[in-house]
Amino acid sequence: MTTVVLIGYGNVGQHLFKALQQSESVKVLQVCSPSAPKGKKGATEFINSLTEIIPSDVCLMAVNDDLIKELSQQIPIENQLIAHTSGTVSIDAIDGKNRKGVFYPLQTFSAEASIDFSTVPICLEAANPNDLEVLKKLANSLSDKVVTLTSEERKRLHMAAVWVNNFSNHLFHMAEEYLNEHQLPFSLLKPLILETAEKVQHMMPSEAQTGPAKRNDQSTIEAHLALLDHPKQKEIYKLLTESIQEHFNLK
Amino acid sequence: MTTVVLIGYGNVGQHLFKALQQSESVKVLQVCSPSAPKGKKGATEFINSLTEIIPSDVCLMAVNDDLIKELSQQIPIENQLIAHTSGTVSIDAIDGKNRKGVFYPLQTFSAEASIDFSTVPICLEAANPNDLEVLKKLANSLSDKVVTLTSEERKRLHMAAVWVNNFSNHLFHMAEEYLNEHQLPFSLLKPLILETAEKVQHMMPSEAQTGPAKRNDQSTIEAHLALLDHPKQKEIYKLLTESIQEHFNLK
Repeated sequence: MTTVVLIGYGNVGQHLFKALQQSESVKVLQVCSPSAPKGKKGATEFINSLTEIIPSDVCLMAVNDDLIKELSQQIPIENQLIAHTSGTVSIDAIDGKNRKGVFYPLQTFSAEASIDFSTVPICLEAANPNDLEVLKKLANSLSDKVVTLTSEERKRLHMAAVWVNNFSNHLFHMAEEYLNEHQLPFSLLKPLILETAEKVQHMMPSEAQTGPAKRNDQSTIEAHLALLDHPKQKEIYKLLTESIQEHFNLK
Repeated sequence: MTTVVLIGYGNVGQHLFKALQQSESVKVLQVCSPSAPKGKKGATEFINSLTEIIPSDVCLMAVNDDLIKELSQQIPIENQLIAHTSGTVSIDAIDGKNRKGVFYPLQTFSAEASIDFSTVPICLEAANPNDLEVLKKLANSLSDKVVTLTSEERKRLHMAAVWVNNFSNHLFHMAEEYLNEHQLPFSLLKPLILETAEKVQHMMPSEAQTGPAKRNDQSTIEAHLALLDHPKQKEIYKLLTESIQEHFNLK
């Protein structure tokens, strides 16, 4: 049995809590959040202040990146394994009076969508090998995909995550906006968006590339540029087309 | 019962054939492809030459955009409803001795992945109302999402499809390449890619946007730019970040 105290009850915290609760080998002793109502929820005590935190096998900090350093200093216990859940913050942000770790679930969490945690890669780091084993045990009880990464590797992975998640969502947003302006329903693109993502589950993106840029179909590229209304749209269309063509040595 | 002759047996042609065969209200009389082996396949005759084509309710041309005009001229019958399957080519590319139509399935088709055609939007156009009804009947027998669009609307929709499919796949490719260069496995991003696509099935992309650009988190943005190795990567990162910030009035 791994005992856990969870600090933070935002999107990541709530999804983590749900997943941890469902694991038979985990007991969540406390959830600490200034906003969640105090009281018991099953075996878990909800508390509002860091001063109430008790020792556990792992104290998980699912808080904003900027708060990790400061809040970890305020935890009133010592020699406790504390792991933050950030993709970008170094393990060293955690205050030195405690044992440092990272427990980064690589997924996008929103209040609306429920997540199957068994498919979520969990990226671990710990300052000492024993603590790494504790984090591994905890991570394996939630997910089938657990890896150990350095802070540097995690930062790079997080940046790649920004490309595939934030940036492709922005492309969807650009398409939504464009179709709105031309009274066409965005819903027509939904199956295509899903299939695009499903394709790269069993095929590398480099092999999955199709379209006018890849075919070097200049007349379609020019027709598309003529259909675009805003300079920024044209700029993004041109740059991504150029980049595809460079990747396939068409330029 | 709608009788169909299918010209072209590439990715789109093969997926269409499979879906048409499964429909009880459709009979595929012939498939014409220079490369497919001649002979009977169930109720369907496979032929190699356009000269052998017989009349049907709908003749579907699932051929390359560039070939639509020329091949439609070579079809040796008249007053036949002929519909091409292209997202970009005007209905008028079809030769005038026959009745013109468009039957555009908005999806990405690859040899490997099987497609549930009932979820694929089919965009129709016809030069006369009777033919539109014939196409609607055929499309409804395959898909739950059938719409009628002008050639202009279809072109705009196809361009939006390039954004969400080709361009986001290129972002996946950039991430693949970046992770390769740093000895990190692309597979870690797969669940995130899928969830990004699933999120916009029930939420508008404009509402689903997250990340450092949206949060106006300059220190993460600068850290990411410092992690990028190639000028093109930096240029794309900057442009998309700038565009996100403009969309949310952060700039």
